[in-house]
Amino acid sequence: MKKILLVNAGSSSVKWKLFADETQKPLASGLVERIKMPNSIMTTKYQGKKATDHFDQLTYEAAADLIFKKLKSLKLVNDFTELSAVGHRVVAGSTEFKQATLMTGQKITELKKLNDFAPLHNPNEVKYIEIFQQMLLQTPQYAVFDSQFFTKLPESNAIYSLPYEDTQKFGIRRYGEHGISHDYISRRAAKLLGKPYDQLKMISLHLGSGASVAAEKNGRAFDTSMGFAPLTGVTMGTRSGDIDPSVIPYLMKKLDCSVADVLNILNQKSGLLGISGISPDMRDIEAAKDHDQRAQLAIEIFVNRIIKYVGAYYTELAGADALIFAGGIGENNAGLRQQIVSGLAILGFKLDASLNQRQTEGVISAADSTIKILVIPTNEELSMVQQIKQIKD
Amino acid sequence: MKKILLVNAGSSSVKWKLFADETQKPLASGLVERIKMPNSIMTTKYQGKKATDHFDQLTYEAAADLIFKKLKSLKLVNDFTELSAVGHRVVAGSTEFKQATLMTGQKITELKKLNDFAPLHNPNEVKYIEIFQQMLLQTPQYAVFDSQFFTKLPESNAIYSLPYEDTQKFGIRRYGEHGISHDYISRRAAKLLGKPYDQLKMISLHLGSGASVAAEKNGRAFDTSMGFAPLTGVTMGTRSGDIDPSVIPYLMKKLDCSVADVLNILNQKSGLLGISGISPDMRDIEAAKDHDQRAQLAIEIFVNRIIKYVGAYYTELAGADALIFAGGIGENNAGLRQQIVSGLAILGFKLDASLNQRQTEGVISAADSTIKILVIPTNEELSMVQQIKQIKD
Repeated sequence: MKKILLVNAGSSSVKWKLFADETQKPLASGLVERIKMPNSIMTTKYQGKKATDHFDQLTYEAAADLIFKKLKSLKLVNDFTELSAVGHRVVAGSTEFKQATLMTGQKITELKKLNDFAPLHNPNEVKYIEIFQQMLLQTPQYAVFDSQFFTKLPESNAIYSLPYEDTQKFGIRRYGEHGISHDYISRRAAKLLGKPYDQLKMISLHLGSGASVAAEKNGRAFDTSMGFAPLTGVTMGTRSGDIDPSVIPYLMKKLDCSVADVLNILNQKSGLLGISGISPDMRDIEAAKDHDQRAQLAIEIFVNRIIKYVGAYYTELAGADALIFAGGIGENNAGLRQQIVSGLAILGFKLDASLNQRQTEGVISAADSTIKILVIPTNEELSMVQQIKQIKD
Repeated sequence: MKKILLVNAGSSSVKWKLFADETQKPLASGLVERIKMPNSIMTTKYQGKKATDHFDQLTYEAAADLIFKKLKSLKLVNDFTELSAVGHRVVAGSTEFKQATLMTGQKITELKKLNDFAPLHNPNEVKYIEIFQQMLLQTPQYAVFDSQFFTKLPESNAIYSLPYEDTQKFGIRRYGEHGISHDYISRRAAKLLGKPYDQLKMISLHLGSGASVAAEKNGRAFDTSMGFAPLTGVTMGTRSGDIDPSVIPYLMKKLDCSVADVLNILNQKSGLLGISGISPDMRDIEAAKDHDQRAQLAIEIFVNRIIKYVGAYYTELAGADALIFAGGIGENNAGLRQQIVSGLAILGFKLDASLNQRQTEGVISAADSTIKILVIPTNEELSMVQQIKQIKD
């Protein structure tokens, strides 16, 4: 049986997932954490069981090697010619990579030029493409870019009101994030609604520890709350969302620190965690809200910012056919969905309280809602497999 | 006849305007520019005539002295006891100053602590309060703060999703701008609509070389597009409006410059000027739009960002009674008003094409619009005089 291996490399971790090529069914998955650190950990999930192995100071190459050994020892792969493709998720493809791409030597060289767009992610992702290429000489390596969905934004929404020459010369624009997810859930919504994707206007909410709002129109991305980096837009677990950049020099002075230190605060110590002081996890904050004012404030701000983005996008789209909830919060938190949709009542959005309790994908809006509201569990890995199969088959 | 003198000090200029205390009628106005620079210029407007005087390297004190001499030589003021009050516009009052305030020695000391919130403006404004206090020992000096209208924002809209302790300790919040204008035009709109100010929901657009959108609810400010400093929100003449702060370290690296240099680009070289490359003035950009794609793009972005803010505020307000246009563009550019309101059609906003041609304050919406749309020429000076009279009389 041919299989496709998906690789998602972070700054100190690498996740993998194995799919059956033909059926696109997931077979196993795993994670190596704390790479190049003391106490590296390898976790594997297979047939409902979870195994954990401990190592120390794993290199990137050793982590890759361990994944292969594990695939063999579990007899998931007997011979590496069984792997018909390896797919790598890459954060930043800038405007160079507009779709899933077979990574030839030439393409890898081009990709390396984009490191500045995601300095914490791209270099490691490229490294893994090269490692896997060396280990699997016969297997084509593909990159799927989280930025690719938003390369088609209309220019007026893509660029910032900066000196135009600089935006062009340095590639400064709205790259967005969760592109693979917004792409997947909006296409899936079109299928569930039984309408052609290219004739719909939709607003999609990917609400997890990272969170973003996107607008889709006539089969392509139209706008998104995430910006040049995955920092802006709505309030996230630890990320600030929209903020006045004038705060940066002010905080540098007050905290006597560097611009990188302030960006670190905005990315790691802000958002729900920063407001509540409790946790970046909405579940912890909701558990505290009855007795903690800052927890209440965090929820209020989280909902308010989403409502404002949806109102803004509904207006610029001149109405929409569907509002989609996805991501950990969007898929599982019926109470927050209710709060968000209540805040959209003036636009005629209305939930069906009983449908809103559903645990599977489908419509949750009331019959008299001006818009169809759907919950769609996102599946970025499946979307990646589908995209890779479209190129290779 | 008693008179009130208003003073608006900039970083290298000082504007003044003289009002009759009782009738609140403007009597004369003037401007001293290029203070502490070669070729200082003093302009005076009085009885429809304009006079210009030239000096060199004027100090702040000399500029104030020249204003007094001019008031005397034009017989606008025969004796300085005729001045019942001097009012100073101050940019940043932080959360300390929530209304127009008589500036005692104690208050001046408190105000000096706020220089960090508007380093280019507050220090000079305080200096002028002290200069005028020394010159006019008998005349009370008042400060009216551009920030005061937004001190009453709900906390959820006022604070950023940053570490909460830092926002409290360092006074980081949305201070807004054009507060005196939004206050004036929203109160005036309530009068024109014949409804109590504290029972209305409104969205006000101050669109000039600086531009901001504000929401008012039940007699107080509810939200605003301007942030910690007057940089964010919609696209302005030279200011970027909303932007991902992650662009700052990226541009520092690409341009090999400091954080202050990048902030300078965002404030001085961005906005309509940056996109179009033509001018920060909408009139110049509109003149070029038929043959210049970047001019078209600048207009498109300008309108789009306003539409998104209005849609967002209309949604969070759960509907609104009035949309108000003010500022140089808002008051005089019927074509842009039409473009903006067309972009709000999905919300049921609709202009009356013939009323939209009006040159004076009043309603310009169609009878079947879901919201009253008004043009209201702003009058910040009159608002300041009214506020000062309320305290002193």
